[in-house]
Formats: sequence, C-alpha cells, structure tokens
Amino acid sequence: MPAFASRDREAAAAPEALAAWRDLLGAEHVVTAGEALARAAAATFATAHRVTAILRPGSREEVRGCLRIAGRHRAPVYPVSRGKNWGYGSRVPAADGCALLALDRLDRILDFDEQLAYVTVEPGVTFAQVHRFLREQGSRLTLASPGSTPEASVVGNALERGIAGGLDGDRASRVCDLEVALPDGSLIRTGFGRFAPAAAAPVARSGVGPGLEELFLQSNLGVVTRLTLWLTPLPAFYQAFTFTIGDRERLAPLVDALQAVRRDRLLEAGIGLYNACKVASCGGAAGGGAWFGEGALTAPDQEIGSCQRRLLRQRLTGVVDHLAFRAPNAANPLVGPPARGSLASVYHCKAQPPPRDMDPDHDRCGIVWCCPLVPFRGSDVARCAGILEETLAAYGFAPAVGAQCLSPRAVHVVASILYDRETPGRDEAALACHRSMLAAAAGEGFLPYRLGLQGMDLLPPPADDSARLFQILKRAFDPADVLAPGRYDFRYRWPQG
Amino acid sequence: MPAFASRDREAAAAPEALAAWRDLLGAEHVVTAGEALARAAAATFATAHRVTAILRPGSREEVRGCLRIAGRHRAPVYPVSRGKNWGYGSRVPAADGCALLALDRLDRILDFDEQLAYVTVEPGVTFAQVHRFLREQGSRLTLASPGSTPEASVVGNALERGIAGGLDGDRASRVCDLEVALPDGSLIRTGFGRFAPAAAAPVARSGVGPGLEELFLQSNLGVVTRLTLWLTPLPAFYQAFTFTIGDRERLAPLVDALQAVRRDRLLEAGIGLYNACKVASCGGAAGGGAWFGEGALTAPDQEIGSCQRRLLRQRLTGVVDHLAFRAPNAANPLVGPPARGSLASVYHCKAQPPPRDMDPDHDRCGIVWCCPLVPFRGSDVARCAGILEETLAAYGFAPAVGAQCLSPRAVHVVASILYDRETPGRDEAALACHRSMLAAAAGEGFLPYRLGLQGMDLLPPPADDSARLFQILKRAFDPADVLAPGRYDFRYRWPQG
Repeated sequence: MPAFASRDREAAAAPEALAAWRDLLGAEHVVTAGEALARAAAATFATAHRVTAILRPGSREEVRGCLRIAGRHRAPVYPVSRGKNWGYGSRVPAADGCALLALDRLDRILDFDEQLAYVTVEPGVTFAQVHRFLREQGSRLTLASPGSTPEASVVGNALERGIAGGLDGDRASRVCDLEVALPDGSLIRTGFGRFAPAAAAPVARSGVGPGLEELFLQSNLGVVTRLTLWLTPLPAFYQAFTFTIGDRERLAPLVDALQAVRRDRLLEAGIGLYNACKVASCGGAAGGGAWFGEGALTAPDQEIGSCQRRLLRQRLTGVVDHLAFRAPNAANPLVGPPARGSLASVYHCKAQPPPRDMDPDHDRCGIVWCCPLVPFRGSDVARCAGILEETLAAYGFAPAVGAQCLSPRAVHVVASILYDRETPGRDEAALACHRSMLAAAAGEGFLPYRLGLQGMDLLPPPADDSARLFQILKRAFDPADVLAPGRYDFRYRWPQG
Repeated sequence: MPAFASRDREAAAAPEALAAWRDLLGAEHVVTAGEALARAAAATFATAHRVTAILRPGSREEVRGCLRIAGRHRAPVYPVSRGKNWGYGSRVPAADGCALLALDRLDRILDFDEQLAYVTVEPGVTFAQVHRFLREQGSRLTLASPGSTPEASVVGNALERGIAGGLDGDRASRVCDLEVALPDGSLIRTGFGRFAPAAAAPVARSGVGPGLEELFLQSNLGVVTRLTLWLTPLPAFYQAFTFTIGDRERLAPLVDALQAVRRDRLLEAGIGLYNACKVASCGGAAGGGAWFGEGALTAPDQEIGSCQRRLLRQRLTGVVDHLAFRAPNAANPLVGPPARGSLASVYHCKAQPPPRDMDPDHDRCGIVWCCPLVPFRGSDVARCAGILEETLAAYGFAPAVGAQCLSPRAVHVVASILYDRETPGRDEAALACHRSMLAAAAGEGFLPYRLGLQGMDLLPPPADDSARLFQILKRAFDPADVLAPGRYDFRYRWPQG
C-alpha cells in the first residue's frame, strides 16, 4: 500500500502553525493537551493516526483563517462536525499528523421555512437540536435521525451520505445550497446562493451551470460551513408494520416483492430488513435463517392508508409470515430522535452493561461497518448478504447483516462487526474481516456506498481514467495538500497520473 | 461585455486540425460546405457565431480523438447531440469560430432493465427512439417527452436540465453513471461505473467519494458519451384534470394550495399553469387575466385514485373554477412522444401555416425562452409571472407565461417570446426583451434555471468566490480551452481571478 505523503510528517504540528492558530482563535480554542489528543485519536477499532492539535473555530471566518494558516505552513487539518462517526473512524483523521478542525462551536440554526419545509444549519447543529427547534416552532415537519445518536451532527451525517429509515431517508439527495470554505480560504455557495438576492437558493440544488454540491460530499475538497436540509412533513396517516420470513431461501423473492411495491409507489417510506443475528444484537430473538422486516405506510388520509394496507397484504401474502400492523398514527417511527436503546446495542458484546454516559470510543466498544450498495433485486441482495454473513462467521464474529430499502432501485446492505476491544486479538480480526468482506463484495460488483477510516484505501482500482481526474481536482482545489489528506482520497491508491 | 477569447479566433478552422479530423473520421464525416455551415449557425433568433466545420464522430473513441486533435491545434469544438435546443440557441455554438461536434451518429440504446426501470443511451438517441424501443419490448415503463419534438436527444435534454410534465419531470435528477470524454481525451464514468464489475452503476448516482455527475450538466467540462436515465413505471391508475381561475388575483392563493397538495403527497405528477396568452398561443381560448391549469392523479389502484380525487376536490374548492376530470386511464399524458401540434404552436406568429417538415431554425420562427426558477410560494410565483408578463408587453410581445410545478419546493416559470423573424426589428426587440426580463427577474432574486445562447453572459456577478472556482475548474479540465468556450462559462463575465 503506498504511503500518504502526510504519514511522513511529524506528529506534532509545526510550531509556527500552532502559534498562528492561537493568535486567530485564542489559546483556549487550540487544544494540545496529551490526554485530549489521545482521546481524539481513539475510535471503535484500532487506529494509528495521531492528532497534533484540536482547533475550535467559532465562526466561518475563523474556519477560513484556519485553512489559510494550514496552507501557509503546510500543516494538514481534518474537519469533523461532532465526531460521532462511530464504526467508520469516529473523529480520527484519515492520515497521521493532522490537526482536528472541530466545528462543534458553529451550532446555529440559520433559517427555517415551514411551508417550503427546510432548515439551514451550521455543522455543529445536532439532530436533537433540530428536533427541539421544530417542537418549539410547533412545526409539522420531521427529520429522520440516524441509528447512532441524537447528538450526531446533521451536516456531518449528510456529508457522509448517511441514511435513515422512514420517509426521505437518503439524506444526501436532500441537501441544498452548501456554503463551502475552500482550502485557500475562499468561500463559495453551491447553487443559486452564489447570487444575492436568490429566492430559490434553499429550494433548488444545482442552480444554473455545473452543479458543485456533490463534489463536497464524501470529499476532501472543502469544509462545509452551512447547508440547507429539506425536511419531511408529517403525513396525516402513518402505520408501522413488521413481518418475518423463516429461512434465507425466501429472502430473494421477498426483496423482489418489496421492489415491486416501491416501484409501483404503493409505499414511500424505507423498509428495513435484518437477519436473526442483527435482531439479536439489538436485544430481540429470532431463529437461525430468519429475517425480520419493518416499514411504514404513509398517506394523506386514513382511507387511502387503508387501501394501501389492503394492497400491501395482497402483495406480501405467501411471501412473508406474520405481517402485522401497529395501530395507525401510533409509535411513529418518523418523529423524534432515536431512543437511547439504539446506542446501547453497541455495548451488546461488552462484559458490563452500558454506562449512563455512553461513549463507545472511550468505552472500547468494537464497531466496524461495511456497507455495499446493491441493485434492488432479490438475487443481488441475497448474494451480497450471503457474502457478508459468511465472511463474518469465518472470522468468528456474529454474522449480523441488515438491508435498508430506501429507493426503488438500490438497497444499502449493512454488515456490522460488533465486539469487545478488550478481548485480545479481536481488534486485528475485525479489521481483517472488514477487509475480506469489502474485497469479497467488491469482487462480485458490490461496492461500498461509504467508507470509514478502515476502508479509505481498500477500493479496487478503477477501470477508467478517474484516478487522474481526482488528482487534477485535488491539485486544483488544494495545491498545498493540507485538507483531510487520505479522506476519500483516490489519488494514491490509483497512481496512474 | 467582455470578449470571449475565442471570438477573436479565425472563423475558419485551422487547416491542420481539419486535416487531422478528416484522417480520423473520414472526409465524409467532416462537413465544411458553406450552406451546411450557415444552416448550423442559424437558430430561432439572431445569432452571430460562425461554425467552422461539422464533425460527425461515429464512436466514443472518435469523440476522444476529435478532442485530442482540438487540444493539439487549439481548435475549439462545440458538442451538440441532436441540436433541437430551440429557443435556447438550437445548435449554434456559444462562441464564434467553433467546429460543431455533432453526436447524432452515436445513437445506440446500450442497456435496459424492466425491473429496475432504466435505459442506457448514447447522445444521438431521440425520445421517439426510446418510445419505439419500449413498445417493442412490451415494457410498462414510460419516459416523459419535452414539449418541443420527439426528435430531440434524450441526453441533450437531460444535460440542459430540461423538464417535462407528468411523473418524474425533473430529468436531471434521474440521470446516472455518465460516461464522459474529458477535453484531454481521457474517459471517465461518474459513479460506481468507474469500477468493473459494478452492479449498482446504473441504479445509484454518486457512487462513493465526491460526486461528479452534476459537474457535466449545463457545463463545458466534458462531452457525455453515454448515460443511464431512470424511467417511470406506468401507474395502474391515472386521471388527467384541468381547472381555471378567472383573474390574476387568484394566482397566488392557487399556487399556495397546489404547494400544499404537493407537500402532502396527495399528488405526484407535475402541474402546469398557463396564462390566457400562453393558452392562445397553443390554439386555445381564454379571457384576459385568466390562468389555466392541468395535471394528473396517479395511484396504484382505482380506489386510491378515487380517494385522491375527492381530496383534491376538497383542497381546490373555492380556489379554482371548473375543476374537471377526464376519464380514468384515458388520454394518458404520461405515455408516448408529444404530438405534432405542440411544435406547430411555434408557427403561431408566422403568416403561413406550418409546413409538413417543420424546422423552426430554417423557417425563421422567432422563439426565445426565459425560465426563472422560483420558490413554490404564491407570492413569489405571482410576482415573477407579473414581471415577465409586463416586460413582454412593454416590448410589444404577447405576454405568454406558464409555470411548471414539478417538486414540492420550486416552480419553473417560463416566458416565451414568439414572433416572426421576417418582421423587421423583431429580432432585435426579442433579444432586448429577453435581456430585460432576465435582469428584472434576477433583480428580484429569480434566477434562470437554464441559459440559452442569448443569455450565457447575462447572469449577475456572484456574491461569493465562485467565479474564481469556475476558472480553476475550467483550467484544470480544459487547459487548452477548446471545449465549448462560452457555454455556461462564468469565467469572463466574472473576471475576479
């Protein structure tokens, strides 16, 4: 594996850069205490990259200043919003020797529109904060939360292309008008927001001309300092449902039936599928080859919802067992931040029960995700799930696999490696298992939709000239190579140019 | 207005470039006859840019070769798919002295999947061709056609962010896995398609890492040689409806009511609104301040469709007059290429009736579009429509204005300047009127979602650093500056960098 340039850098930040950052932010917002840096370098699996300092700018102007100083002194920085990227590397930089650019102090909600259903936030804003804000406004709008924690950053989650259940769970398709600080300190808006005035800035993505917003998702080309997120109006009718299948032979026909349901717009919300082992890790119980499913009907009124229920029953008869509907408009999975129980599941493998203040990084919970995106077709989903289950079992991990069906065309398959980092040898086994899973899935054409620190250099080489294009882009945006080296950074793995 | 560098170039292509293109393509595919070049330089309004040659590559390898030759000899090229970009400049290059890179010979349908509902096409494939193909396959899938002609290119329309009525009319959000020849002749795929194998390439847009596909929409950074377009399954139930309002005071409340209908997912298809003058230009009749509307309900079955009809009636009672539903599943606006009548409307201002073989460029029909994108809010849509109507009237044009409501958040407002190019003075008036409309709308924050040849240099300067970023991007992708100079080319208008 080729070395990243930055890996040869000193682990301590250049004294000139530190001095300049202190001048800019005030000494109290430049953390260099050993314990804090060690904590920032810990994730939910073994990591080796050292953090040289933690910078805590309080405004976008300070973010721009931090970047200018980084470029001037060739001192690399790694932006994190809230750092809750558990299972993907938390807040540990993708290269050794970076200063963390922690954006948690940029925590303002800047704009909101009930009719047009959007909210504009800075990167420090959490899901819990948005939920609180919407309640205070008496809003009918909702924002599906990630499975991890309500303290995660909305912006951070969106920029990683994080997903959620319920309606509109493909968050990256619902961001708009990104404000981005480029590595040279300049500032751009990605859509109509570059003009003033621009009425449609928060409601239209690309504006006019080449679209830039996707360039800054899963990227190391700029630091997003604000964005608009489209919210989802609470439907007048919703009804959660669950179902099971007894053995894995029925998974492919089930997936095909669900695809037809989504294709025919009988259902708009996402559907989650979980194998027995995944259910067990969340505290449930199910038989060996069984899969469990959950979803929700949503409709503009009760009568339409009832019709949909009848149609869904017809479509799933003989395909699933135990199709059960909860009471309408009850236990709404679309509203509110996730419960504490969801986070507790990552303590499943620990000897002790979870503490009151759960911190998986510090508590040495082992979590590693592997997430291929596959066509919404029974044969593909079953094949990919099988590969992941077999590889997990081969390395002695519980073969916990799930699948999120968020669109009519593609399914996010999710394997979780959960373990106790205190058990000798498991850290190494987890990363080896992850590497094997990713390679085995990619070998069949199932590429990950998202990479963690553990996988940034594991993609196969491309069959086209894109490695060179990524080199050209990175050089054009960040000639000093100081912004998040190694993060979705396909230059070194694919040294063609 | 600053001059484009290329405007100072000779109108004749460099002899070395021509010789090399002839060697590559064969002399029969390099057209330099004066009459053909003059025809290629004619649009539906006055144009001044000369075409030096027409290159007709027959494969993506030949496209790449043409680009390499262009770069080597600094001979600019301007790609067009089918050249039916009427009202926006047809196939006339955005700078003087370019060779047309005509992609009509790349006309293969490369892939198709009924279950996952997509088709993969080359840039020469027309809407009529896709419709014919789907019929031959016995497919249940549909592709909404543009209002212009079934002979337009699917790829060309998508890359301009063209829109359509019916379901999924926002075409640019439904393209995937672009194959792009870059100016240096290299070739990339924008999503998972860069890997081989990559099962999800045609069903997931951005793949993993920074997303590139939007960079090549409304762009001069690359030549798209294939893309996948997501198709729409024909719903089991559909029912078209129409309505009117008698005066313009009722437009804002109507738009707000329609927004609520879309927001609450009572309706999925687009809704078109047209003022009386727009209706008249299409052969209909209506009173002075009246607006006319049309849309369609779509549902997974008849019973749900009936419920939706009841809800829609409730929502629009008192808001509109004459809400009328056609027979269900009849006169389906979602299927089939547009009728000939649609194109005939641009001959409305001509003294003679349209000929059998309509060619608006050659027949000197005057057509100029101006298309601001505005928030889906009554006050904004009414204000923007008013600005466009007033400006059209001030220049002596029929104030034909429409609005396409395709999403819950934004509305495409469309003004058409229709006239007879044979009438002295109207060519000049049309461009002056377009310039005034665009400036007046932009002054209120209503920016165009799409630019024609007539508007490439009319955007206001940006309030951020994006002009510099576009310079950096263009320089990185096209250092010889030979690909479509002036096309969505914000470098010269905004000379900051």
